Amino acid sequence: MRGCSRDEKGRISFGKWEFFIQALIVGSLIGFAVETLPNLPERWHSILRIFEIATVAIFTVEYFLRILLGRPKLSYIFSFYGIIDLLAIFPFYISTGIDLRSVRAFRLLRLFRLLKLVRYSAAIRRFHLAFSIAKEELALFGAAALIVLYLSALGIYYFERDQQPEAFASVFHSFWWAVTTLTTVGYGDVYPISVGGKAFTFFVLIIGLEIVAVPTGLFASALSKAREQLDKEKNRCDFDS
Amino acid sequence: MRGCSRDEKGRISFGKWEFFIQALIVGSLIGFAVETLPNLPERWHSILRIFEIATVAIFTVEYFLRILLGRPKLSYIFSFYGIIDLLAIFPFYISTGIDLRSVRAFRLLRLFRLLKLVRYSAAIRRFHLAFSIAKEELALFGAAALIVLYLSALGIYYFERDQQPEAFASVFHSFWWAVTTLTTVGYGDVYPISVGGKAFTFFVLIIGLEIVAVPTGLFASALSKAREQLDKEKNRCDFDS
Amino acid sequence: MRGCSRDEKGRISFGKWEFFIQALIVGSLIGFAVETLPNLPERWHSILRIFEIATVAIFTVEYFLRILLGRPKLSYIFSFYGIIDLLAIFPFYISTGIDLRSVRAFRLLRLFRLLKLVRYSAAIRRFHLAFSIAKEELALFGAAALIVLYLSALGIYYFERDQQPEAFASVFHSFWWAVTTLTTVGYGDVYPISVGGKAFTFFVLIIGLEIVAVPTGLFASALSKAREQLDKEKNRCDFDS
Amino acid sequence: MRGCSRDEKGRISFGKWEFFIQALIVGSLIGFAVETLPNLPERWHSILRIFEIATVAIFTVEYFLRILLGRPKLSYIFSFYGIIDLLAIFPFYISTGIDLRSVRAFRLLRLFRLLKLVRYSAAIRRFHLAFSIAKEELALFGAAALIVLYLSALGIYYFERDQQPEAFASVFHSFWWAVTTLTTVGYGDVYPISVGGKAFTFFVLIIGLEIVAVPTGLFASALSKAREQLDKEKNRCDFDS
Repeated sequence: MRGCSRDEKGRISFGKWEFFIQALIVGSLIGFAVETLPNLPERWHSILRIFEIATVAIFTVEYFLRILLGRPKLSYIFSFYGIIDLLAIFPFYISTGIDLRSVRAFRLLRLFRLLKLVRYSAAIRRFHLAFSIAKEELALFGAAALIVLYLSALGIYYFERDQQPEAFASVFHSFWWAVTTLTTVGYGDVYPISVGGKAFTFFVLIIGLEIVAVPTGLFASALSKAREQLDKEKNRCDFDS
Repeated sequence: MRGCSRDEKGRISFGKWEFFIQALIVGSLIGFAVETLPNLPERWHSILRIFEIATVAIFTVEYFLRILLGRPKLSYIFSFYGIIDLLAIFPFYISTGIDLRSVRAFRLLRLFRLLKLVRYSAAIRRFHLAFSIAKEELALFGAAALIVLYLSALGIYYFERDQQPEAFASVFHSFWWAVTTLTTVGYGDVYPISVGGKAFTFFVLIIGLEIVAVPTGLFASALSKAREQLDKEKNRCDFDS
Repeated sequence: MRGCSRDEKGRISFGKWEFFIQALIVGSLIGFAVETLPNLPERWHSILRIFEIATVAIFTVEYFLRILLGRPKLSYIFSFYGIIDLLAIFPFYISTGIDLRSVRAFRLLRLFRLLKLVRYSAAIRRFHLAFSIAKEELALFGAAALIVLYLSALGIYYFERDQQPEAFASVFHSFWWAVTTLTTVGYGDVYPISVGGKAFTFFVLIIGLEIVAVPTGLFASALSKAREQLDKEKNRCDFDS
Repeated sequence: MRGCSRDEKGRISFGKWEFFIQALIVGSLIGFAVETLPNLPERWHSILRIFEIATVAIFTVEYFLRILLGRPKLSYIFSFYGIIDLLAIFPFYISTGIDLRSVRAFRLLRLFRLLKLVRYSAAIRRFHLAFSIAKEELALFGAAALIVLYLSALGIYYFERDQQPEAFASVFHSFWWAVTTLTTVGYGDVYPISVGGKAFTFFVLIIGLEIVAVPTGLFASALSKAREQLDKEKNRCDFDS
């Protein structure tokens, strides 16, 4: 069975190399965060730059090795993982060549490296399966949650706009309140002060919380179904081989 | 079986037209929100007005077509969906005729259009079924949650009214604190500052959170039961036909 | 079977009278809250007083009727419900006789009336059963949650006491932070500002949230077990009779 | 069966002594917290000191008794529980001998006493089992949650750093926002104020909450599996004996 053998190959090939690559990616992501620190001494910037070059060098070597070793020659280049691996090194070469360091958004492209984690991550496979299991339901109840958010925003807008014309200037402004309230984050930057607004918030919380919480529950149960399915698949393969 | 055939017809008739109508409703709702934006240029108001007129025109045509095509003639007018469809266009004509634009609450009537989504929404059907499954239990534990909220409000009132006579002026004022605390929103506009009030909050959170969270759990499990029931029904129909 | 027949009698006797009594209790509780409103006009106080007297009069009549009609004569007086019913009217007579209106705590005794709801409430019976099912587990994991809270408070105290000597003056002060943080209420009156304190909060939230959330989950599953048990009991009785 | 008999012995030996030791530990922990109270009268310090000495004395006697009564002589000293029991008294003697009272961190060592609770705690045994059941999954989805937090921090950094250069000074500063937001604590010390930042927060909450909530759900279900497993084990032992 093809699906099984591929699965097994993946398990066999997973070893020290994959772990090393994953560590490099994580290190690269942390380096990316460290670079944003204000008042970072110049020396640190140099170290991070060297680490960045080394990382990209290793990724590039890996990329060309994979092209050469790909069984149907060159097939790797246009495969899903090939594109991901290219995206992980591409931004570095562009930014060095044309020196676009000042272009902010460009540096964000380095985050494509995160996609390289997909290669080795069982979590993402399961998330993917869970998502495809509950796709319709998530869309259905996600829409219901959006309607609840919309109605909450609209309601609070009518109750509060006179007393707080800044914070509740429009339905869109009120939407911010609805989101932070119904997810129970509650920053406290906007909250109703009128009696009507408070009473309305009470009803919104009583009814709305249950509906907004539905997608989370759906996703959780889909995730456990995905595990069962993957376990069954694995067992069948173990049995076959 | 009547229930099944109706179900199937619904599935067959659901197509591009329904999708178009749903898109119109969503567009109409967004337009409603955009209109509330402060400092919106006059041109936008005109565009929204035209979109509004077009939407109502399409809904009106649909309404009269449905009246004409209804199998027992005119039965549609007094059916549940007929009334919803009328409510979706009715407010527009009234407000245009008598020009009640200044009456704020009146414009809210346009929200009846949201009900038109019911027609096509499987989510609402399932919410409805889930609600009827857990009706008694929701009432029971909703009442329990209300009692917890009441007792929390009463308790904090006695602990905090001396130190914060404004925020905890009465049990009703304290109720606002109880709601935002026990739903874990916690805006931070009111919170206990006395030692007694803080200790009381500790116990309220330890005991109360569990009781206030019960209805959400009930609704979630009712929703999954509703799915099983609807799936079973659907399968039976598929088998029959 | 005695348990069943008693159950059935309860169902038969439950009717308009019980509904009326429950409405009176709820009205009484709302009246209690209304009384605390500042600047309440004198007329309202009079109306509430009359309503209070009427309520107690009805409860008193009910109490004596129950004594007279109790099958083993006077047995009702010392029964669980008899004591509850007495507690619901007792405070009123004491406060009128000796005029202890100024004694604040005394008026709280009127809340005993809430216990009268127990008589008619299936929710409380199920809460009781759920609690006895999960008693040991709740104690076990409640203790675990308390230890997590204690360690969180202790840790943040060491991290923050230098920078915020007011808010984190002692482990007890820090406990307030731990409670509002781990229940995710997050008022925002106290929060870490040092880097160490923020990093510590990160770990506390990652690990602690899961442990603090355990009792709520336990209670929820115990509550659904309690329902199954009560349903089974009821079915057996229906079958017997 | 050795596992079973040990289990039973544990049950038999558990009695008043264990309860007394547990009470001492809890008392010791509370004493530790009381000591941190500012403006604590000198007399209280003396009382706490005496209680501390008495507690350590009892623990020391228990420790030496256990060494003497250990069946393979001295085996207790190097056993897991022996080391815990030593850690519970060790810090006291060191600090008295060399008088390191000024060294802050040193006093924290007294918390090792908390580990003594492990001896008697079924909760910790179950936590341990639940953790080993869900170890891989927790690591997997814990990593997924961390990636979500990282991406959220990175995103909000780009949206907010211009308008709030203090609060969102770097990705690490933004991480604090990401943690308090995605756990729904929401202190309100940092929150987005730009339109882009608010829209980003909306999407982060919609998608991120579900992923961050996964580990909690995993741990909860592992905990219930752990109970089943322990119950089965216990039943088998009861059957054997």
